[in-house]
Amino acid sequence: MSDLRLDGFLGGRLQIAQPRRGYRAGADAVMLAAACPARPGQAVLELGCGAGVALLSLGWRVPDLRLTGIERQQDYADLARSNAAANGIPCKIVTADLAALPADLRGESFDHVIANPPYFLDGTAAPDPGRAQARQEQTPLQIWIDIALRRLRPGGVLTVIQRADRLDRLIATLQDRAGDLVILPIAARAGREAGRIILTARKGARGPLRLLAPFIMHENLMHQRDAEDLSPAASAVLREGQPITSLFAKVS
Amino acid sequence: MSDLRLDGFLGGRLQIAQPRRGYRAGADAVMLAAACPARPGQAVLELGCGAGVALLSLGWRVPDLRLTGIERQQDYADLARSNAAANGIPCKIVTADLAALPADLRGESFDHVIANPPYFLDGTAAPDPGRAQARQEQTPLQIWIDIALRRLRPGGVLTVIQRADRLDRLIATLQDRAGDLVILPIAARAGREAGRIILTARKGARGPLRLLAPFIMHENLMHQRDAEDLSPAASAVLREGQPITSLFAKVS
Repeated sequence: MSDLRLDGFLGGRLQIAQPRRGYRAGADAVMLAAACPARPGQAVLELGCGAGVALLSLGWRVPDLRLTGIERQQDYADLARSNAAANGIPCKIVTADLAALPADLRGESFDHVIANPPYFLDGTAAPDPGRAQARQEQTPLQIWIDIALRRLRPGGVLTVIQRADRLDRLIATLQDRAGDLVILPIAARAGREAGRIILTARKGARGPLRLLAPFIMHENLMHQRDAEDLSPAASAVLREGQPITSLFAKVS
Repeated sequence: MSDLRLDGFLGGRLQIAQPRRGYRAGADAVMLAAACPARPGQAVLELGCGAGVALLSLGWRVPDLRLTGIERQQDYADLARSNAAANGIPCKIVTADLAALPADLRGESFDHVIANPPYFLDGTAAPDPGRAQARQEQTPLQIWIDIALRRLRPGGVLTVIQRADRLDRLIATLQDRAGDLVILPIAARAGREAGRIILTARKGARGPLRLLAPFIMHENLMHQRDAEDLSPAASAVLREGQPITSLFAKVS
């Protein structure tokens, strides 16, 4: 993976090397990190960590986390390791397929699991093999959720960002295994339907679901200039590394 | 049921006799009717029609519907019949338990089924026996959904209004039997989490879920005066009998 570029995240506070072409993490990874209610001292596992943007965003915001990332693609796993070192955030990156985790990981449990499972199903062609592997779903969504729940301690919290149109599959997969579901719709602009959702769920819990007010990414109803119309809430998360506080009322 | 009161709905266009005490239909029933994408000439079944507010609101808005309501409580079924007659909207009201429908109904199928299943589980005490029966859930939510799906023709549309915190149970119950889910969060005010959801689903469909922007009931962020702070959208539905158009883009 020779053709790399250094991208600034959290207003430049985090410098992440990513391939110029191929799968590149963006706002979704930062939003995922901002949604995870991890507290100092806790253990966090990311499934499919790519170049490490979500894990390192979380590590930048919350001190003293024990961060572990799993990544199947060797070159992305190597990038995640060097990005962690370059940003001075200790991370353990394991190169492994989700469906075949090494024995020591299968013996560990975590306070939090975070994941941004691939958004496209097998068969959706992507022009680049790296991007194709990261964005397509060799591992079905159900398996991601199964593995996440297995690695959580009882009462641990799963945080997932996903396409809104797969909310039904997510919920059906979690049914009877996790509760206290909190759904945050993410909409490009006020009044638009959700493009993404962030879902948090507590393993083994039975509490009622909450459907929050949408998180609005852009300020103006019409797209005007490219970089300057982030909503104040989105700017706080993406440019300043703030948490998504509306999610944290019940999960912590 | 002697102690009745005449309540105006749709800005007084519909006059509905309801018991002064006990279960009284309100905004939820009108919202349910406004969410049903029935077209003239179609057949609509309501499970648990009470005094008929939803069915008659729908019949007021859409001409030439074949309207059928099922109601377990004899006195409410009688009220629904007399309310239908008084408002000049033809309706067939069947007094029956959902779990034991008469044979002729079990032979019928409908283009639309609408329902506002009870919001409270068994054990939540209600002061009045009529209200208790209508609001508590002798018949679990799953059974309501099962019966609704059984009475829909293939491709027919289910429209349900329910507490937002039961969205997970609704979705899990529909999984693999209905698709094209559209979820409309209903929030008291902008920025608040949803208190209710309206969900539409098409029997046997496989299309992706849509999570719409919330329907906001009240205009001001703080509650000011009781009657005057309906949002323009809520006022159009509740006072003028308009449909909830944001729901109709895909289901029709």
